[in-house]
Amino acid sequence: MTAAPRSAAERRRDTEHRLAHDVDLWVASASPDGVPHLVPLSFDWDGETLLMATTEGPTARNLGATGVVRLALGPTRDVTVIDGDVEVLEIDALPRERGDRFAASAGFDPRALTTPYRWFRVTPRRVQAWREENELSGRDLMRDGRWLV
Amino acid sequence: MTAAPRSAAERRRDTEHRLAHDVDLWVASASPDGVPHLVPLSFDWDGETLLMATTEGPTARNLGATGVVRLALGPTRDVTVIDGDVEVLEIDALPRERGDRFAASAGFDPRALTTPYRWFRVTPRRVQAWREENELSGRDLMRDGRWLV
Repeated sequence: MTAAPRSAAERRRDTEHRLAHDVDLWVASASPDGVPHLVPLSFDWDGETLLMATTEGPTARNLGATGVVRLALGPTRDVTVIDGDVEVLEIDALPRERGDRFAASAGFDPRALTTPYRWFRVTPRRVQAWREENELSGRDLMRDGRWLV
Repeated sequence: MTAAPRSAAERRRDTEHRLAHDVDLWVASASPDGVPHLVPLSFDWDGETLLMATTEGPTARNLGATGVVRLALGPTRDVTVIDGDVEVLEIDALPRERGDRFAASAGFDPRALTTPYRWFRVTPRRVQAWREENELSGRDLMRDGRWLV
């Protein structure tokens, strides 16, 4: 049986809890000519931006070329989806504490690897959260970078 | 502790089990000018193609425009990823049994809804499966539409 739809405030609370505690998310990117890519990556949320790290490959190339990403957290029937703008940063470009925080939360330290990694910092523009069909209405929690609730 | 990496044959068996039994997957698409989209959808696998249905929106638009999709099944640390080619079909264009099979497996019947749905039939071109870092090597199970194992 489908549960009653959550209020916007509940959805924001659940979303922020997940951003603070989850380790991985799904990263959807696109090449400039419309080929989609999708991989799981670890991330860290500092309350305003999501930090991810990856090495050369389609995700790094796409995010560098287009500057936009769509992220998903949670299982398919309890999702948080985030459209965001991406900054690409060299691996030595962040304050040490920010990198330490990522390493603690993601379980690996991309600064310590011989494979060359870069940082991808995502600023959310739109955030949506829904479980089932009956939560599709009211799923927008952030628009144009501002929380609605 | 990370488990030992699975053989290619084990990964294919796990992947086919998931294709046969899972209800939902992640659907990544891209607009022709490089904006990624990502949503969960229900699907049915007939052993050769995946069938999905959705109504108007970014996913339907992107798949219609580009004809390519990237799908993911499973949790972030036990993934199956599928790159495929997409055919778009009107809702009355499939044999009745195929639609019935989808409805039984997905839990909803898009032929019975007043909102206009279309079918999206995906033929896998590349299939990959991995759990953790130690399974990145050997993750290709299908290339150019042919199973490697």
